[in-house]
Amino acid sequence: MAECGASGSGSSGDSLDKSITLPPDEIFRNLENAKRFAIDIGGSLTKLAYYSTVQHKVARVRSFDHSGKDTEQDHEPPYEISVQEEVTARLHFVKFENTYIEACLDFIKDHLVNTETKVIQATGGGAYKFKDLIEEKLQLKVDKEDVMTCLIKGCNFVLKNIPHEAFVYQKDSDPEFRFQTNHPNIFPYLLVNIGSGVSIVKVETEDRFEWIGGSSIGGGTFWGLGALLTKTKKFDELLHLASRGQHANVDMLVQDVYGGAHQTLGLSGNLIASSFGKSATADREFSREDMAKSLLHMISNDIGQLACLYARLHCLDRVYFGGFFIRGHPVTMRTITYSINFFSKGEVQALFLRHEGYLGAIGAFLKGAEQDNPNQYSWGENYAGSSGLMSSSPELCPTQRARSGTFDLLEMDRLERPLVNLPLLLDPSSYVPDTVDLTDDALARKYWLTCFEEALDGVVKRAVASQPGSVDAAERAEKFRQKYWNKLQTLRHQPFAYGTLTVRSLLDTREHCLNEFNFPDPYSKVSAAAWGRRGAVGGGGSLGAQPGDRLGPAAAW
Amino acid sequence: MAECGASGSGSSGDSLDKSITLPPDEIFRNLENAKRFAIDIGGSLTKLAYYSTVQHKVARVRSFDHSGKDTEQDHEPPYEISVQEEVTARLHFVKFENTYIEACLDFIKDHLVNTETKVIQATGGGAYKFKDLIEEKLQLKVDKEDVMTCLIKGCNFVLKNIPHEAFVYQKDSDPEFRFQTNHPNIFPYLLVNIGSGVSIVKVETEDRFEWIGGSSIGGGTFWGLGALLTKTKKFDELLHLASRGQHANVDMLVQDVYGGAHQTLGLSGNLIASSFGKSATADREFSREDMAKSLLHMISNDIGQLACLYARLHCLDRVYFGGFFIRGHPVTMRTITYSINFFSKGEVQALFLRHEGYLGAIGAFLKGAEQDNPNQYSWGENYAGSSGLMSSSPELCPTQRARSGTFDLLEMDRLERPLVNLPLLLDPSSYVPDTVDLTDDALARKYWLTCFEEALDGVVKRAVASQPGSVDAAERAEKFRQKYWNKLQTLRHQPFAYGTLTVRSLLDTREHCLNEFNFPDPYSKVSAAAWGRRGAVGGGGSLGAQPGDRLGPAAAW
Repeated sequence: MAECGASGSGSSGDSLDKSITLPPDEIFRNLENAKRFAIDIGGSLTKLAYYSTVQHKVARVRSFDHSGKDTEQDHEPPYEISVQEEVTARLHFVKFENTYIEACLDFIKDHLVNTETKVIQATGGGAYKFKDLIEEKLQLKVDKEDVMTCLIKGCNFVLKNIPHEAFVYQKDSDPEFRFQTNHPNIFPYLLVNIGSGVSIVKVETEDRFEWIGGSSIGGGTFWGLGALLTKTKKFDELLHLASRGQHANVDMLVQDVYGGAHQTLGLSGNLIASSFGKSATADREFSREDMAKSLLHMISNDIGQLACLYARLHCLDRVYFGGFFIRGHPVTMRTITYSINFFSKGEVQALFLRHEGYLGAIGAFLKGAEQDNPNQYSWGENYAGSSGLMSSSPELCPTQRARSGTFDLLEMDRLERPLVNLPLLLDPSSYVPDTVDLTDDALARKYWLTCFEEALDGVVKRAVASQPGSVDAAERAEKFRQKYWNKLQTLRHQPFAYGTLTVRSLLDTREHCLNEFNFPDPYSKVSAAAWGRRGAVGGGGSLGAQPGDRLGPAAAW
Repeated sequence: MAECGASGSGSSGDSLDKSITLPPDEIFRNLENAKRFAIDIGGSLTKLAYYSTVQHKVARVRSFDHSGKDTEQDHEPPYEISVQEEVTARLHFVKFENTYIEACLDFIKDHLVNTETKVIQATGGGAYKFKDLIEEKLQLKVDKEDVMTCLIKGCNFVLKNIPHEAFVYQKDSDPEFRFQTNHPNIFPYLLVNIGSGVSIVKVETEDRFEWIGGSSIGGGTFWGLGALLTKTKKFDELLHLASRGQHANVDMLVQDVYGGAHQTLGLSGNLIASSFGKSATADREFSREDMAKSLLHMISNDIGQLACLYARLHCLDRVYFGGFFIRGHPVTMRTITYSINFFSKGEVQALFLRHEGYLGAIGAFLKGAEQDNPNQYSWGENYAGSSGLMSSSPELCPTQRARSGTFDLLEMDRLERPLVNLPLLLDPSSYVPDTVDLTDDALARKYWLTCFEEALDGVVKRAVASQPGSVDAAERAEKFRQKYWNKLQTLRHQPFAYGTLTVRSLLDTREHCLNEFNFPDPYSKVSAAAWGRRGAVGGGGSLGAQPGDRLGPAAAW
């Protein structure tokens, strides 16, 4: 643990402590190899992006040429596996509150050793406000990038490149999350970016977009009014309060105005007639939970209606929501979706993004990396290093979310070559490589999660055994166990945390966790006889339907 | 003073006392002669309408036929004045909080003596909720009327019939209020009714209208959230706090996000990026004034934006605001107007109504009075019995607005015959009978107000002298003095309280106040030689450019 940041401010209790203790092995990972930086500073949150290299062992597979031979002969294995050291590229994204920016910049400076870069791409209003601070602390020149350009660049990138990035949320459906398959033709769409305030942008092509509206009632309003009403300054605690509250105790509903006789009018009595209408005259105390819930409803409804109106005005039928407000919170998504459906009579669709908060940072990074042609590569989300959706879920145990509430992480690995669709596919965009969707089937999900939990001991043993010469193999294997176990628990509560849950994604997650602790393939010594079975489940890559020569250990459960 | 209402609830301090003392000579006037009732009960406020008859003295003028004679002969007066007892019709509207409904119904029951009506037209959601209570207390059958129908009927009525009903508000113009002349062709328009919540209605003709949207962020939200934040449950006090606050202490402005470098981006640094954004993290207390101001801004901005979007979506360029939220409050009107101008680029016009709060009650009353053909009459606002715009103005002395904050009054007198335009006018709709607009010219306004103040003693004396046989003339004249003096003070602070201020309206107000205390024409004995001077200023009626045979005392200053 490294103590960093501001000199002790001596604050206590509920107030925000501007000094913070950062665990370097969890936040700002791989900083020592960081090659390139970008930063997106909004009104409340900072999103830092950096590109680094990771040296790790990989298992290489070489196939033999069996043409003209009988492949059924089991004394001749169909391939050979060798473990090599390899350097791969990784994109890291870290979100934290602006309150901690000085502490974080200090931390970064202290841990930067090998970087050769001289500039940092910066976007968001804070790129102006914190320019001098960044230049002084990091000794990098701040290169300011246009806010809208970065936002849209980032949004287009995730929509095109990240599998299961966008989803619709339907409270009463099973499953509640419906992830969309990536589609090369994403335009036109409306982007509603909910940061401290709200920006509404019409996007027509990669380069043509226009700011068409905005609202001051955004995430900062939920946070700020929520803090005043409930006396907590923690965003996640506010969401947690909201998830336990009853808004009808504070809001004036249609049935409150009509006195229960609403059925005669064809009106739904549960519609909110006036947000906070009951607290105007009622002579009693209101619970923090109820006020937080009412506030979340009020803001989400308002954003939903504005989004719907702008979409209709500009003849757009898809609205994506960016920013760091929603965070996969069911109440928010349900309310926004309801509002859009209600006001558009179902003609406008609300789509949420798993990485809503990083659009500007991703865009700024891409701007800075343009000479490297980042679009020529494919990127896969690293499940081991990413917080996943609902990292602030109140259902997760408090210790798990204590830090993630302040810090949120996303890591993407650059794949060795661009992913392309299998040329033999008739309709690549409709092809889904996974035949079993565990988000559809709660029983199957529980079964498979239990399988992976029960198999964990064996995998740990196998990992240690695969590196007999290593002195710290047992220690690393134990860390792997803890990390993967936590991921499995997260997935029990939030099966949608990383998109659609499949046996393949459970295997990928295990592969990423094993790689994290330098176990490229504990099963490399397993006899080739197992290969046939493994192949049935799927390849190791995390993206699409690619046939690849790179086989991870993932399929070896 | 009559003590009425609920048995003492024993509440104290800041809490609302549901019992209330009603002064019968100020609120619910003329109840003993009430002939017909209508009531509009919203989520927070009740608006009661009743029609009564008023018996009072009027001055009648009979002209002599001077044809063929030399009218310059001063020994033959051109007309004769006689005072007669007359019964005229008056419409009363009273607004009070729903909290007091039981007390008010009890009061009405106790003071109803001569009514023969058996039904009460009721609209608003509360027509359902309070149906049994009203029927039990008043022994009248509740006849429920459709909310939208009443609202639109009332809006059309005031737009067509009340002079200077609608106005635009421009903060930096002189005058700030621009009253519109009545126009027979009022359609199509958008009505945004801001009650506890907001209803948005597209109105195409007298009978064709459609509810097209709504919002839960309305007057109840300002009141309810304001009460939670500032610990006052009084709407007027909230407005008062807001008028003294600095929203930039609580809101995150664009310049707060950009750190002052906003000029480089072509953005106005004073735009609100996030309402209440500063209270999210700042570790300090916020003043009640600042929070109230920020809240008022947030809600007004939001309503303005929604109004603008609905207007654009339905190709309407005029938006009228109804409900009891705005109340002529400058901050609210400025913010709504700014928001609509900003988001529509000036293509949509925000218009406010002096009687915004009574639309539903007026409509319900008209529904009930349909067999009497109310549209065949003309109605004139009685300035003596009406609160006027900004009755809750914080600039007025607290004692003056203490009751008006809870109760608001509007009275309209039925004129003897329909007003019609003078047939000789080339373009009646552009003809303005008053040549001196005192709202345009602050110096002239002050001059005239001082004139009327200084003349008051003389008018009081003249009034007493005009009724030598009356024992209570002196007492009534003193009451008149107090009432008219207060009106003049109100007009000093709020020159727009009753529409455009002219010498004629000052005279009309004095006439109404004199009539109130049964002084139909203190000047009836004044020699006819004065007639020529009086005629130059204007007739006695409060409406339009009518030539009339009814001459009030008004012109005799």
